[in-house]
Amino acid sequence: MKVVRKISELRGLIQLEKNLGKKIGFVPTMGYLHEGHASLLSHARTENDVVILSIFVNPTQFGPNEDFDSYPRDFERDEKIASKEGVDYIFYPSVLEMYGDNATVSVVVKDRNDVLCGKSRPGHFDGVVTVVSKLFNIVNPSKAYFGKKDAQQLAIIQGLVRDLNFDIEIIGVDIKRELDGLALSSRNVRLSIEERENAPMLYECLKETRKMFEESNDLDNAIRSTKAKLMENQLGSLDYLEILSYPELKKPDKKTTTFIVAIAFRYSTVRLIDNIIFKKESEKMEIKNV
Amino acid sequence: MKVVRKISELRGLIQLEKNLGKKIGFVPTMGYLHEGHASLLSHARTENDVVILSIFVNPTQFGPNEDFDSYPRDFERDEKIASKEGVDYIFYPSVLEMYGDNATVSVVVKDRNDVLCGKSRPGHFDGVVTVVSKLFNIVNPSKAYFGKKDAQQLAIIQGLVRDLNFDIEIIGVDIKRELDGLALSSRNVRLSIEERENAPMLYECLKETRKMFEESNDLDNAIRSTKAKLMENQLGSLDYLEILSYPELKKPDKKTTTFIVAIAFRYSTVRLIDNIIFKKESEKMEIKNV
Repeated sequence: MKVVRKISELRGLIQLEKNLGKKIGFVPTMGYLHEGHASLLSHARTENDVVILSIFVNPTQFGPNEDFDSYPRDFERDEKIASKEGVDYIFYPSVLEMYGDNATVSVVVKDRNDVLCGKSRPGHFDGVVTVVSKLFNIVNPSKAYFGKKDAQQLAIIQGLVRDLNFDIEIIGVDIKRELDGLALSSRNVRLSIEERENAPMLYECLKETRKMFEESNDLDNAIRSTKAKLMENQLGSLDYLEILSYPELKKPDKKTTTFIVAIAFRYSTVRLIDNIIFKKESEKMEIKNV
Repeated sequence: MKVVRKISELRGLIQLEKNLGKKIGFVPTMGYLHEGHASLLSHARTENDVVILSIFVNPTQFGPNEDFDSYPRDFERDEKIASKEGVDYIFYPSVLEMYGDNATVSVVVKDRNDVLCGKSRPGHFDGVVTVVSKLFNIVNPSKAYFGKKDAQQLAIIQGLVRDLNFDIEIIGVDIKRELDGLALSSRNVRLSIEERENAPMLYECLKETRKMFEESNDLDNAIRSTKAKLMENQLGSLDYLEILSYPELKKPDKKTTTFIVAIAFRYSTVRLIDNIIFKKESEKMEIKNV
């Protein structure tokens, strides 16, 4: 496994692999790897000849009051996990290497970004699609792997690839959870003991909302009753709980067959997200309140 | 020479060429080819194994009151010119093929677009960089060729390639002119006889402005005196005449060494542009009014 810090060096190495006809699988991350990332890497390892992991805490996707500085970083630990997962190259560029001079051009999201996390994180997804476009052009992979925990990001990146004609297959990988149901996240380490004990309720709320929606076919009611419970939680505050179509991220209508129920919840210094994507033949079911 | 209308078909053909180790040269155009385009193709032919010409009148770079509908088109004629220049593939997609569903993502220009043509054509360069990004991702060339007549476009595309890390070398090719000095343009055919006779004055004005600037080192005065002459022209109206640094497109300062003097002039139904890019060691010269 080789760590590469320069774009030009990585391009050269990838070109050599491509000249040998090798298929490149790419896992872009912000580091502080957990089993969710390991699962992405393991998928990439199975489906490609060469696996490239990027570790880059991308400043342009953090808002001015967000946690760019306190975002957890531990490169040595990441290196060990990457090595264990059979990564061939870690691309670990500096901010200067990635952004150099002031940018004259960037990529912007025009749809799917006015709901869920996009609502409370203006500009976040513009930063994501810009850095992902840059990484795609640097790595030029056949397949790229993203976790379904960031379901809105995954939907937006599928739109990016379609709309800018990247010749890359995007693979969404299932959410990894702790035994108590908490979705794995690099941010989990920053929860207090009390918050950590409380946090599995996010997934419980998602399951409950989904169940209520499937049983009653009443979208508003399913959301409302779970929200009431969440409001009582003294340890944090609800950012959103929504049921939308997936991957369009629109208010579901009678044609919707794939839904997402998604939550964001703020503890003192950490904002956590989680979701369940599920299928349902709404047409046959006469959903109320859609 | 093969005409290809589908993205997936072109990708397949290009992949076969790449598997043989061939270098791809790409010339993106809006068709209605003239000797300026032929010069791009001829450069591409000399420097690459495979030459791909795209012909696509891109709706997203035309404003609502601009000449998308009346932009000249003649595919059969273009085909003959392309064949003569040794083009291997013409990519000639429909608007539906290029844009399909509503776009969720696009590329935007954040710098170099508030001057010259960018000022009077809001959104124009966003449309350009978006379609060029799409074409770059479809064709995936080693080199791409653009005319220096669209000098602002060339500067912005150099920024696009740098900022989104496209692994493509951008080649700027010198302006081709009629014997009387008029820069070649697909739009020239839409000039009236009288306008056509008048139009070579654009290049004369550029040369005069440059000469005056080089002799006097006085930027404002060089512009002002040529502008006065242009204002007297009864056949059309001046859109802009400017001297800027190139490729930054900023007001020149004492460190500027490469300048552009650029003009846009509107005849009844046609807006023409032209420019001269030139070097000058301003530091030694004590330019006034910069």
